[in-house]
Amino acid sequence: MNAAIGQLIGVGVGPGDPELMTLKAVRALEQADVIAHFAKAGNNSHARTIAGAHFRPGAEELPLLYPVTTEIHRHDEAYKLAIGAFYDESAARVAERLMAGLNVAVLSEGDPLFYGSYMHLHVRLAHRFPTRVIPGVTGMSGCWSQAGAPIAQGDDVLMVLPGTLDEPELARRLAEADAAVIMKVGRNLPKIRRALAAAGRLPRALYVERGTMAESYVVPLAERNDDRAPYFAIVLVPGWERAA
Amino acid sequence: MNAAIGQLIGVGVGPGDPELMTLKAVRALEQADVIAHFAKAGNNSHARTIAGAHFRPGAEELPLLYPVTTEIHRHDEAYKLAIGAFYDESAARVAERLMAGLNVAVLSEGDPLFYGSYMHLHVRLAHRFPTRVIPGVTGMSGCWSQAGAPIAQGDDVLMVLPGTLDEPELARRLAEADAAVIMKVGRNLPKIRRALAAAGRLPRALYVERGTMAESYVVPLAERNDDRAPYFAIVLVPGWERAA
Repeated sequence: MNAAIGQLIGVGVGPGDPELMTLKAVRALEQADVIAHFAKAGNNSHARTIAGAHFRPGAEELPLLYPVTTEIHRHDEAYKLAIGAFYDESAARVAERLMAGLNVAVLSEGDPLFYGSYMHLHVRLAHRFPTRVIPGVTGMSGCWSQAGAPIAQGDDVLMVLPGTLDEPELARRLAEADAAVIMKVGRNLPKIRRALAAAGRLPRALYVERGTMAESYVVPLAERNDDRAPYFAIVLVPGWERAA
Repeated sequence: MNAAIGQLIGVGVGPGDPELMTLKAVRALEQADVIAHFAKAGNNSHARTIAGAHFRPGAEELPLLYPVTTEIHRHDEAYKLAIGAFYDESAARVAERLMAGLNVAVLSEGDPLFYGSYMHLHVRLAHRFPTRVIPGVTGMSGCWSQAGAPIAQGDDVLMVLPGTLDEPELARRLAEADAAVIMKVGRNLPKIRRALAAAGRLPRALYVERGTMAESYVVPLAERNDDRAPYFAIVLVPGWERAA
């Protein structure tokens, strides 16, 4: 018999290689009554692909499908309203199951509280239901490990920067960082390259696609002339310039 | 029969809870011929405590014991010489085993290439021997998950700052960060508190000890009057101030 109320569990499934799931994440999925995962309508959830082998047989899967918003810019009010309503509705669907005494695991690529979609459920539900978060290996850890690039050491300042920042701000921040990780690369790549050059950091920069997956790809950014990049590519600027 | 040359494996064992090791780390330790771990002379390696249950029976343990340098300041030339010689000698001991065809796993708390001691071996050996790095859950991920504190979202800039920075620089950088993680807290705590106050970030700051361990402790920094803190305590300034 279920307890009166279920537990919400944010489960980090790591950067892509299913072997980079933690023992704790595997155990949580083997026991969860409901397993929720975010995906774009018509696509498979990437987190589900990583973690699917560990779902408890008979567990309910709860896909949370983003509304199609390709025609709306993400800073528009229309987008914000649509996405806010989607997270509200998703939280309500999860809450319904928690109220019924079911434990709900929410999959999150990488680490749940580090730029993850799970956070939108967490802020809506964690004050109402027993909640725990299982941290995961981040995508950026997967990338610098794949590249074999020591990212930061000793008194290094490390900055995690979205590639969406405008060019002068990106250049200014890069000039002040000992080490940097630039996320959301995609179509921002030409701008990122110029900002790195302006900050004098282009020679150290590495371009990484698909961190820990079979088809991963690492190249010095200065050697890459192509201006196209997938949204989830990452640029690393390793610190520790005084390394022995 | 062993191959002619062994593999160096940097193994992240995560932030403290043994269940937060990855499947890949466990498998690597179950197969390694030699398992190396750093510790202060007279102390147990914390990474060994986390991972010890998974060592292959019969594996050689190779403790790498830091020289006693408590009387020397770490910016002194004498310290740098002593510690550099220690890493050189440790790398030579590992290299000897790799040359003999043995696979050597080097334990690292958290993630090996993120402020880890393993990095000192990596830069000395990775160009000479087949090497791979298994990323791990970082201490900071363990801390914000324990605190249930969403750290960064969307276009947030996240800074990882050493508590050793001087007060004006710390305050200036904190004022420019959407989210921040301050490491190496220890005796820097009073300075960190003042810098957070100057940057207007003290009300959001959380103090975390022993992230994912049984005796973990999370408190708003503003409510903590004690000026003492262990070296490995962390201060978090969660971003995402526009959270729904």
